[in-house]
Amino acid sequence: MDKLTTIILAAGYGKRMKSKLPKVLHKISGAPMIQHVVDLALEIGSDETVCVVGHGRELVEASLKNQKVKFAVQEVQLGTGHAVKAAQDFINEGLVLVLFGDAPLLSALTLNAFIENHKAGKYKASLISTNFEDPSGYGRIIRDKSGKFDRIVEHKDATLDQLKITEINSGIGLFDASILMTALNALKNNNKQGEYYLTDVFEYVKDHHGAVDAFVINHSYEVIGINDRLTLAEAEKYHQSLIKKHWMLEGVTMISPESIYIEKYVTIGQDTIIEQGTMLKGKTVIGEDCNIGPYSEIIDTKIGNEVKVKHSTLLESSIDDRTVVGPYAYLRPKSIVGKDCKIGDFVEVKNTTIGDCTKISHLTYVGDGKVGNNVNLGCGVVFVNYDGVNKHLTVIEDDVFVGCNTNLIAPVTVGREAYIAAGSTITEDVPEKALAIARERQVNKTDWSNKYLKKK
Amino acid sequence: MDKLTTIILAAGYGKRMKSKLPKVLHKISGAPMIQHVVDLALEIGSDETVCVVGHGRELVEASLKNQKVKFAVQEVQLGTGHAVKAAQDFINEGLVLVLFGDAPLLSALTLNAFIENHKAGKYKASLISTNFEDPSGYGRIIRDKSGKFDRIVEHKDATLDQLKITEINSGIGLFDASILMTALNALKNNNKQGEYYLTDVFEYVKDHHGAVDAFVINHSYEVIGINDRLTLAEAEKYHQSLIKKHWMLEGVTMISPESIYIEKYVTIGQDTIIEQGTMLKGKTVIGEDCNIGPYSEIIDTKIGNEVKVKHSTLLESSIDDRTVVGPYAYLRPKSIVGKDCKIGDFVEVKNTTIGDCTKISHLTYVGDGKVGNNVNLGCGVVFVNYDGVNKHLTVIEDDVFVGCNTNLIAPVTVGREAYIAAGSTITEDVPEKALAIARERQVNKTDWSNKYLKKK
Amino acid sequence: MDKLTTIILAAGYGKRMKSKLPKVLHKISGAPMIQHVVDLALEIGSDETVCVVGHGRELVEASLKNQKVKFAVQEVQLGTGHAVKAAQDFINEGLVLVLFGDAPLLSALTLNAFIENHKAGKYKASLISTNFEDPSGYGRIIRDKSGKFDRIVEHKDATLDQLKITEINSGIGLFDASILMTALNALKNNNKQGEYYLTDVFEYVKDHHGAVDAFVINHSYEVIGINDRLTLAEAEKYHQSLIKKHWMLEGVTMISPESIYIEKYVTIGQDTIIEQGTMLKGKTVIGEDCNIGPYSEIIDTKIGNEVKVKHSTLLESSIDDRTVVGPYAYLRPKSIVGKDCKIGDFVEVKNTTIGDCTKISHLTYVGDGKVGNNVNLGCGVVFVNYDGVNKHLTVIEDDVFVGCNTNLIAPVTVGREAYIAAGSTITEDVPEKALAIARERQVNKTDWSNKYLKKK
Repeated sequence: MDKLTTIILAAGYGKRMKSKLPKVLHKISGAPMIQHVVDLALEIGSDETVCVVGHGRELVEASLKNQKVKFAVQEVQLGTGHAVKAAQDFINEGLVLVLFGDAPLLSALTLNAFIENHKAGKYKASLISTNFEDPSGYGRIIRDKSGKFDRIVEHKDATLDQLKITEINSGIGLFDASILMTALNALKNNNKQGEYYLTDVFEYVKDHHGAVDAFVINHSYEVIGINDRLTLAEAEKYHQSLIKKHWMLEGVTMISPESIYIEKYVTIGQDTIIEQGTMLKGKTVIGEDCNIGPYSEIIDTKIGNEVKVKHSTLLESSIDDRTVVGPYAYLRPKSIVGKDCKIGDFVEVKNTTIGDCTKISHLTYVGDGKVGNNVNLGCGVVFVNYDGVNKHLTVIEDDVFVGCNTNLIAPVTVGREAYIAAGSTITEDVPEKALAIARERQVNKTDWSNKYLKKK
Repeated sequence: MDKLTTIILAAGYGKRMKSKLPKVLHKISGAPMIQHVVDLALEIGSDETVCVVGHGRELVEASLKNQKVKFAVQEVQLGTGHAVKAAQDFINEGLVLVLFGDAPLLSALTLNAFIENHKAGKYKASLISTNFEDPSGYGRIIRDKSGKFDRIVEHKDATLDQLKITEINSGIGLFDASILMTALNALKNNNKQGEYYLTDVFEYVKDHHGAVDAFVINHSYEVIGINDRLTLAEAEKYHQSLIKKHWMLEGVTMISPESIYIEKYVTIGQDTIIEQGTMLKGKTVIGEDCNIGPYSEIIDTKIGNEVKVKHSTLLESSIDDRTVVGPYAYLRPKSIVGKDCKIGDFVEVKNTTIGDCTKISHLTYVGDGKVGNNVNLGCGVVFVNYDGVNKHLTVIEDDVFVGCNTNLIAPVTVGREAYIAAGSTITEDVPEKALAIARERQVNKTDWSNKYLKKK
Repeated sequence: MDKLTTIILAAGYGKRMKSKLPKVLHKISGAPMIQHVVDLALEIGSDETVCVVGHGRELVEASLKNQKVKFAVQEVQLGTGHAVKAAQDFINEGLVLVLFGDAPLLSALTLNAFIENHKAGKYKASLISTNFEDPSGYGRIIRDKSGKFDRIVEHKDATLDQLKITEINSGIGLFDASILMTALNALKNNNKQGEYYLTDVFEYVKDHHGAVDAFVINHSYEVIGINDRLTLAEAEKYHQSLIKKHWMLEGVTMISPESIYIEKYVTIGQDTIIEQGTMLKGKTVIGEDCNIGPYSEIIDTKIGNEVKVKHSTLLESSIDDRTVVGPYAYLRPKSIVGKDCKIGDFVEVKNTTIGDCTKISHLTYVGDGKVGNNVNLGCGVVFVNYDGVNKHLTVIEDDVFVGCNTNLIAPVTVGREAYIAAGSTITEDVPEKALAIARERQVNKTDWSNKYLKKK
């Protein structure tokens, strides 16, 4: 099989983004635009993938660190042809595919069909074209009488008749490597901008080397380039609709899918219901028969089966089967919660492992702890993990009952089956099966409130 | 008047739903699809309503328990004609209407017009047809030169010219009972699937008994059948738009109505404002001049007039006039709150009756209680209702002031006009007008923090 | 330059709104409809702006209090011509523009073009027309063979051919002041409703005084009049889309812009990300490089640069650079928070100034306070600001550490570098560098829980 080299152009500045961030690092569904294009190259079996970087190259390279990607640098931006030429060290044999780092909606389905067509037709160069309702500004595809690709006419050079053509050049091209270098070297910059255009390669190839094809695709949305944040939002909306459609057809129910946001690498089990306004981000994995939402934000978290999460925020945590979370719970990183637990309202958990069947029902902070099975933490319990200088560990063994508004001053261990009286501040370990109490006795001063109110 | 028998076909499996749940139990606006169809049958005055059940019949029957519905069982699914025949015990006199358990969007307005047309035209059988932009897959209505119904041609049997017909058969039919049984008995299954199709009845009736009509409806959305969760979501969106339009025209303001979700049986009073992202579910009743939302989820709750509920979750509760709830409050079942109260931020209430003019402003848990009028519960108050074994009652009489971070160990009663000092754990009853206090005196150890930090 | 007088008609009742509130006070993007029209008049340089009020005039006048607006009263509503005449004291020289208080979507761009066209063409009267897909109910613009304005035909008087005309009269008119009064005085009410129509002025002017123009605008949405809450919601959606488009093109990223709500007077800095479901209201100002949302509601609050606010509600507050708020924080009015602070989950702040680098991480209430720099408030701390009668101040100086579940009974001052032990109720001032402690010692009663459980 021919070697396939993919060159991704990602050197541009993106002035209309009005941003300090390089354009290709703006995100769609949680991944930088260029990440989508790199993923696509891998998905279609690209043997070598080269990003041509320039503006903000350190940031772009950092965002693709440790991935199967190489980099070429375009020091100054002198047009798309010039950009491809910057990657000339990688143009050696087989096919060369040119993609754009700011066109993240292209699908592998479309791209594979394009490549197949190129091979089947034994074309020397191919481009993807599509029909835009409003083709203003785009280069138009001129076809000969037999319908074959003839050439591309830029908008500004087009006659009135040519302006009516709705088939436009997406810029995405596929080339025989050997011919591409010759054609790039022959490019001229005798245009107003003084730039070298990849577009000119197609006519050159047709004139000097043989057949060129313009491969028309129907989903014109796929080749849209992002130039400002309005288009970025529109592109993300389209991408989101694909993701959500996929999961719905896989057996996930969504309440008000327009209001739901699901990032690219999330997976969801069958018969799970995602309720309104929920955001699933990062590498979140959700099991079957769950009820997630409404209005939950879940990032990089693993959720088992039959779990419920309502109005809550979960970060880098893990929730096992049948546990119920929320409403209004906040799980910070490294919260590992067992099966059949309750993490209730106004509860924060952080860096704590929790066993099975444990209830933390309300208004409680559990930080830097290790909590056993079948533990009941009352309302207002605080793991006092910070002494103003260091953080310490709280250990609660199985079957412990911690009364309401209790402070557990870490480091501290509460032995199994122990019981802590409400309102206690626990500074020393509690032996198993013991009662720990640390509070003053109640005194009633009768007939007091009238005098108090008079005084005030 | 003729007897009207409605047969609802609900025996199918719904493979493309990819679900353990029978298809007709998937919900639209809070009610299972089949519930919408059953409601519709009652609304148009059906004298007898029969659901033909098969796959998951126990679940379907359970979901319609105690409703005016009878059941017929179709043991194997051999086509729509076979399904109607399964209900033959109920086909005896008058008119028989056949509806589909997976087509929940049909309106009474449309259905009544259809039935009127059948009666007025003295038809022997009628069907509802409509025009689809993309009629692929549907049976086409063939009309004779005078425009009258001639027959139905299935998509796969259609000529090229017939494929261009956009008028399709919805499947919904109305029949004279006497003729229907004859026609069903005459059905043949000499087709590829070996099934008996209700569709064939119409041609049979026309050929043997007299006039048949295809009644064209404009709102083609009403006859859409749900086959996967994508269509389910689209149908729900349409249904939601009808519900929300209804309430807006009745004098309810909605901020971002697309983001609001209102179930079928909810009612809302005039001049109430529903803010963005609010979900009103179950049999929730909302009064006039309220401000509900944003981002509140309210289920089976009764809300008076001039109530405000912001960013909160309310379940099976009741809130009287002018009370303000939230943001971030959680009312669990049986929270009965009086007039002019404040249930503030990070407050949970459960199974408690609260009088008028009572303030529970923040970070408080009120569970299994009875709270009087004009009570002030400070921040961090906990009704300690659970001793690890049983739940107990807390009673707070009128005009009581409970200081912050107080534990009330139930069972306990605080008499009227009593005052509890902040930080107390109250284990015994407090007499009326008394001050209760249960805390240690403060000691200041001077010049301490430097030594402490040095030690750490 | 000619004097420009703007007359805004705002006397109508708005029956289809089904509301106690006068129609023009219903809001679009946070401002009453009439406020949008008043703002527009000022924006185009109106020298005098007159609102013609009637129904609910006290409320309408109150809503425009202290603005550069005068009022004329239309005691009974006898048509648009009658309404304009009610403002006759203000019709004296130059140009008179008539706008509608229930048509809030008109833009200054459109209106300025309309006025320029009037002046350039030396017209005596002009109206704005536009093309509606469905023009039913509107007066149609009849043009002569040369395409010039001839007259307006009301829907009910139109011939079948005229009914096909899609160009309609918006009602918005511009008149030479001298001619307008003559024309208004000549108006007759010989129509079914017995009303005086401003519409009739245009034909009168054409017949008696000279050229009249119908100025066609493309954005027909701009002249939509609001008559019910469905149209109100649609108009707001359109207005919101303009606001959000503006900010996106200015360099603000929005996640799911459809779910975001931004009121008219809000401003947002470049490279700020607004996440899903966020509502920005009132005169909120947001700096650069912030991350706001998801699901935050921010009203009349000033936010610096690089601030994060997640799932929180902020009212009339101020948050300085790099401070992180939420999730689930509630800032009530007069919360002034410094730089590099953390206001964490389930924290309420009210009427308190907080210095830089201070952490209030969770489950804490800070009310009526003054908190210094580099303070750490533990979990469950309560500023006990209310004694049942009065509110008092809590002062926490720099570098203080307050342990968890501490009550600070105001008025109280904690000196710099002081340390308060967890679980203390602080009733007296704490000297600087001191340790304050107010709690009982812990007692462990061994082998207790078995007996307890047996007893229960």
